Amino acid sequence: MPEAAVASEYRLSTEEKLKRFTIEALTKVGVEQSSAKTVADVLVAADLRGIESHGMARLESYYIGRIRAGQLNPKPNVTVARESETTIVLDADNGLGHPAGRRAMMDVIEKARRHGTAFGAVKNSNHFGIAGYYAMLALEHDMIGIASTNSVRYGAPTYGKSIMLGTNPFAYAIPAKKEPPFVFDFATTTVPKGKLEVYQRKEKDLNPGWAIDAQGNPTLSPAEALKGALLPLGGFGVDNGGHKGYGLGLLVDILCGVLSGGAFGEGLPLPSDGPEPGKVSHFFGAIRIDGFRDVALFKRDMDAELRAFKNSEKVPGATRIYVAGEIEHEKTLSNRANGVPVHVKVWSGLEKLASELGIPFELAR
Amino acid sequence: MPEAAVASEYRLSTEEKLKRFTIEALTKVGVEQSSAKTVADVLVAADLRGIESHGMARLESYYIGRIRAGQLNPKPNVTVARESETTIVLDADNGLGHPAGRRAMMDVIEKARRHGTAFGAVKNSNHFGIAGYYAMLALEHDMIGIASTNSVRYGAPTYGKSIMLGTNPFAYAIPAKKEPPFVFDFATTTVPKGKLEVYQRKEKDLNPGWAIDAQGNPTLSPAEALKGALLPLGGFGVDNGGHKGYGLGLLVDILCGVLSGGAFGEGLPLPSDGPEPGKVSHFFGAIRIDGFRDVALFKRDMDAELRAFKNSEKVPGATRIYVAGEIEHEKTLSNRANGVPVHVKVWSGLEKLASELGIPFELAR
Repeated sequence: MPEAAVASEYRLSTEEKLKRFTIEALTKVGVEQSSAKTVADVLVAADLRGIESHGMARLESYYIGRIRAGQLNPKPNVTVARESETTIVLDADNGLGHPAGRRAMMDVIEKARRHGTAFGAVKNSNHFGIAGYYAMLALEHDMIGIASTNSVRYGAPTYGKSIMLGTNPFAYAIPAKKEPPFVFDFATTTVPKGKLEVYQRKEKDLNPGWAIDAQGNPTLSPAEALKGALLPLGGFGVDNGGHKGYGLGLLVDILCGVLSGGAFGEGLPLPSDGPEPGKVSHFFGAIRIDGFRDVALFKRDMDAELRAFKNSEKVPGATRIYVAGEIEHEKTLSNRANGVPVHVKVWSGLEKLASELGIPFELAR
Repeated sequence: MPEAAVASEYRLSTEEKLKRFTIEALTKVGVEQSSAKTVADVLVAADLRGIESHGMARLESYYIGRIRAGQLNPKPNVTVARESETTIVLDADNGLGHPAGRRAMMDVIEKARRHGTAFGAVKNSNHFGIAGYYAMLALEHDMIGIASTNSVRYGAPTYGKSIMLGTNPFAYAIPAKKEPPFVFDFATTTVPKGKLEVYQRKEKDLNPGWAIDAQGNPTLSPAEALKGALLPLGGFGVDNGGHKGYGLGLLVDILCGVLSGGAFGEGLPLPSDGPEPGKVSHFFGAIRIDGFRDVALFKRDMDAELRAFKNSEKVPGATRIYVAGEIEHEKTLSNRANGVPVHVKVWSGLEKLASELGIPFELAR
């Protein structure tokens, strides 16, 4: 964001202060210290990476608010529902998605370390933050990491007007040598619901291919779209590949919800339902690179691959070609050096939360 | 296709006759019987599924023509480049992609049968037909099948004008109980290059988001687009998620080309280079469903999941909501019952090939 915008709309904190605050707030409402630490890791990773929508902005509304309302279990009994050499399924017992997700991904990594590849799932869970966080846990083990989750429903299938699919993100993390890792974390709808709300506030028309109205017709009106549904990546119908985004969204719902034995399809809540306990499921995978070739050679070639794209010829007016994860990597470095921006509305929300919980509010850098 | 179109532009053959012809033609140019049988299986599967572009239409141009021109090895020495409990890499020795791909996928399935999950790759290979064929091999084993390949380059990255990526398809096959399996096989460009050629013949404008011209500007002109590049799923720039299609295409190139130790990125040929020996790589995976939950319960829930989407409310004017693989499944049943349509141009090309090779031409149903 521009410096001026930072000055007026954002205040600066640090990684350490944001994490400490998150841990204090969560333990105050009954979450175990180790679980609170994981939530803090995931939320602050999002803010560091510039994905504000999934960071501290959600601490109260998605997590602490739901614990205080009795909708989310602060002290779940997470159990193993099924396990084999290379697979594991956890039941999160309606607890926070982050600690259950991290535990599943670490189990998957350990199984892949022993056997080469492994996959896992978590059922009866809740929102787990950014999928990329979990995929990236594989990087230091010289593995390819995979993570995904289904979610509250916002999107319609191709030629459908019923709201059937979450934004259902898929994340892949693949290490390189000197280049930042390839971290590809994307929602399978064209845009997230929040983007419609931003356009409504700015009184701007939507792009074609983003959403339909409640009758199922394509619309450029944010107000009508907010009563309708998001479209899958590729947009309305099949001409621009909307069926591919729909297929990806449904694939995620199958790998998370159906494969784990959790909620899926119409079993997932609509936004109008309010939070429903433990309806979210996650999916994780890890693949050892040295099962395919020498890790050093792989990483050398990853550098060559990523650099070839970055250095390729640009369209008129473009200043840079990125590879997935590069923007977020640079944002992390700059936020670590210059402070982590927190929107003033989020900041005052956290101040209010601190006062309600009776914990210190010490976020300023 | 409409009945009238079948009558005028298509002739009807049968699965058996097309396979027999393919095997005779391939063995005549030196391909082993068992390998020829696999190519026939894959090509005829494409025609049965209604994916004409990847079926018999390519027998001469992609395979037999290249063997006769000395560009593709009819009797390769396929070797294991690396292997672990749950991974395998084959070197296809510049042979046909289909037998090497099938062997790798069958090895992956066997490793998954023993250990729960497995992945594999093939390097120094050639075009392997439809990715969905390989993913579907996992279905009868109650596994989730995954297949992918990189290819000759046609597409540009987001904000790039250099041709850097193939159409790089990804395929997932997941079994259901009474419903046809979920078979999701999609190119990561918005449209294939063939679609530009069809629009040029019909003198129609392209859709926005399909292609750029040689200068890197979005274009609706088929002629200009054919001198330029295909755009990734999501279209030009990032507003409609073009960076997601670009990320998917690059992911495929990494999983196939970089992970296998084969060619990748700019190492892959451009269409103008003509065929380059053994530059294509493939990627395969299999995941046992019973590593996650009871297979019968999973399949029951798959039926419920797929039916919920199919029976959900339609947008005005739409008659049906499909799930991935359903159209191709129904086409297979109808082509088996009524004959497999072969375009008259492909038909006469095969007749010419038969005469050149001195083999019988008996395709008529």
